[in-house]
Amino acid sequence: METITIAVDAIGGDHGPPVVVPAALHVLAAYPGLNLILVGDRDILLKELQGCQAAENSRLCIHHASERVEMNESPAQALRTKKDSSMRVAINLVKKGLANACVSAGNTGALMATARFVLKTLPGIDRPAIISTFPTMKGQKNMRMLDLGANVDTRAEHLFQFAVMGSVMASAVDNIQTPRVCLLNIGEEDIKGNEQVKETAVLLSRASFINYQGYIEGDQIYNGDADVIVCDGFVGNVALKTSEGVAIFIRKLIQEAFEQSFFTKLAALVALPVLKSLIKRIDPNRYNGASFIGLQGIVIKSHGGAKVKAFAHAIEEAIMQVEKNIPERICKEVEQVLRLSSQQKNSDE
Amino acid sequence: METITIAVDAIGGDHGPPVVVPAALHVLAAYPGLNLILVGDRDILLKELQGCQAAENSRLCIHHASERVEMNESPAQALRTKKDSSMRVAINLVKKGLANACVSAGNTGALMATARFVLKTLPGIDRPAIISTFPTMKGQKNMRMLDLGANVDTRAEHLFQFAVMGSVMASAVDNIQTPRVCLLNIGEEDIKGNEQVKETAVLLSRASFINYQGYIEGDQIYNGDADVIVCDGFVGNVALKTSEGVAIFIRKLIQEAFEQSFFTKLAALVALPVLKSLIKRIDPNRYNGASFIGLQGIVIKSHGGAKVKAFAHAIEEAIMQVEKNIPERICKEVEQVLRLSSQQKNSDE
Repeated sequence: METITIAVDAIGGDHGPPVVVPAALHVLAAYPGLNLILVGDRDILLKELQGCQAAENSRLCIHHASERVEMNESPAQALRTKKDSSMRVAINLVKKGLANACVSAGNTGALMATARFVLKTLPGIDRPAIISTFPTMKGQKNMRMLDLGANVDTRAEHLFQFAVMGSVMASAVDNIQTPRVCLLNIGEEDIKGNEQVKETAVLLSRASFINYQGYIEGDQIYNGDADVIVCDGFVGNVALKTSEGVAIFIRKLIQEAFEQSFFTKLAALVALPVLKSLIKRIDPNRYNGASFIGLQGIVIKSHGGAKVKAFAHAIEEAIMQVEKNIPERICKEVEQVLRLSSQQKNSDE
Repeated sequence: METITIAVDAIGGDHGPPVVVPAALHVLAAYPGLNLILVGDRDILLKELQGCQAAENSRLCIHHASERVEMNESPAQALRTKKDSSMRVAINLVKKGLANACVSAGNTGALMATARFVLKTLPGIDRPAIISTFPTMKGQKNMRMLDLGANVDTRAEHLFQFAVMGSVMASAVDNIQTPRVCLLNIGEEDIKGNEQVKETAVLLSRASFINYQGYIEGDQIYNGDADVIVCDGFVGNVALKTSEGVAIFIRKLIQEAFEQSFFTKLAALVALPVLKSLIKRIDPNRYNGASFIGLQGIVIKSHGGAKVKAFAHAIEEAIMQVEKNIPERICKEVEQVLRLSSQQKNSDE
């Protein structure tokens, strides 16, 4: 691959440098054409690197940033007062063209507000959204869902834009010619749902350039019948986090079930390899690395509590998006889709 | 137990009589003081009963109803045109005092609209809600969540009323002195969330008679830290159904994992009893039987796709609520809470 440079917010997230630095070194070793810029307090990062005995890597550099956005800080306050935060500086590097993408496990609201302020949205997009892939029951086929929490109190036209972006992303990245787009609702029938969803359904039904397949319910998210699922950020975030909660719960039940008696412990011993691969498959960390879509630049949001492997996965997601030139492809296609949409609107009138 | 009579909508749901009739007979056999009224087309029900060879049970009777509310029928249309539907007639029996409760697996929207129209809400309650119990990671401790889909586009005062009802239900049924009430949100910090949730948080913080514990996120639903979780019906329904979807997905993964090779099949053989009990524990049907809370009468909503065991569980939920005299207790406590609330409001002013 050609040389790719990624700016990593090394201070953000629940764990900070002890997770970010090993993850960065891990990915660096796997990708020979990769340069990483660790953004954060120089002294802390140097110390962490010395602990990892890898300070000499010529493809790794530190970019000092004196401040840190706290996980519970208000986005507005972070934007106004933390101009030298690791998060802000990492995004600035993308804006200046010094990095092809940035990755942060920091405060989601602040990351979104800062990315939007610094990078701006793509033409025709009012609000960026958070999009991520979900596993499905159909083998290796994944599904993409948005918005996962960037926006609340979304209007129908925003959900419509999310549908356009999600469809473009699925076709550009997953090579699906006409991705099947569904709207998350609480019933499949047309009569159900709230006002926001009903209005969006009308907009999507009219848009011939989107392969709109109608409503989908929560229990169908994982059945593989949709390539893209669109919803409000509040609802999407609840669906995502509830899924994590259930997976963690069931993992605990599996472990408990096999620890009950001598016999079950014996069964566990025999079933261990199967159970390990199973528990790995239902690990929420496996799908870490959500993208902020709709911005003029690549910003990957790692889960705040991500461990080393999960954070490394988020960096790899950034590499993939740079390699596939996602923002430009999205920009081009969104422009075209919006032009088609306005032509259709004019011909309807 | 004293004699309890329950009206069962025998036609509603995805399966109708072939599920409802065996479930009714099963519960009847287990509860000697129970009378059941099967409501629906007499001929169909007699035929189904003959197939079950149990038509002679003196505690079982059929109440004829000539119509059926379809699963995709609009609630307004069902209410206006299906006055002799099995659903409507079953609710009428409760209204007339001929049954202590009714159970239906029919169209949720129509059941809610009909129950609300026929039975009316309790004083001080604007909208009924759907409440159900969820398992938690804390042993046998369950949690109650509402609203699970009776209302969309809810306002803060409705969510506040849901909190009051949920709290009363948890204290009356689960014998928890001061149930911990949480609001489902997309972040624990005060700055996050949509307008509806933020306004509700203000109302709940002011209400000294509710043990309000703040926000809770989707991944914490199952951790046992809340006794009652309050949310909008759209969000609650997505959380409930997404949980079912994940459970079904993981169940499939477990089965697949143990079927991959000769060795894993052998492991499955050894682990079979553990796996069976595990799969049973993550069966969504296990917690079937949601209540419509806030009505002047007991109405239990079974999952539309419930099988025999799950539908029987919904009937048992109705028996429990009759035995515990839930609506009266709720009515009394809601009145008191609302009186306290208005006193507090006056003293604040």
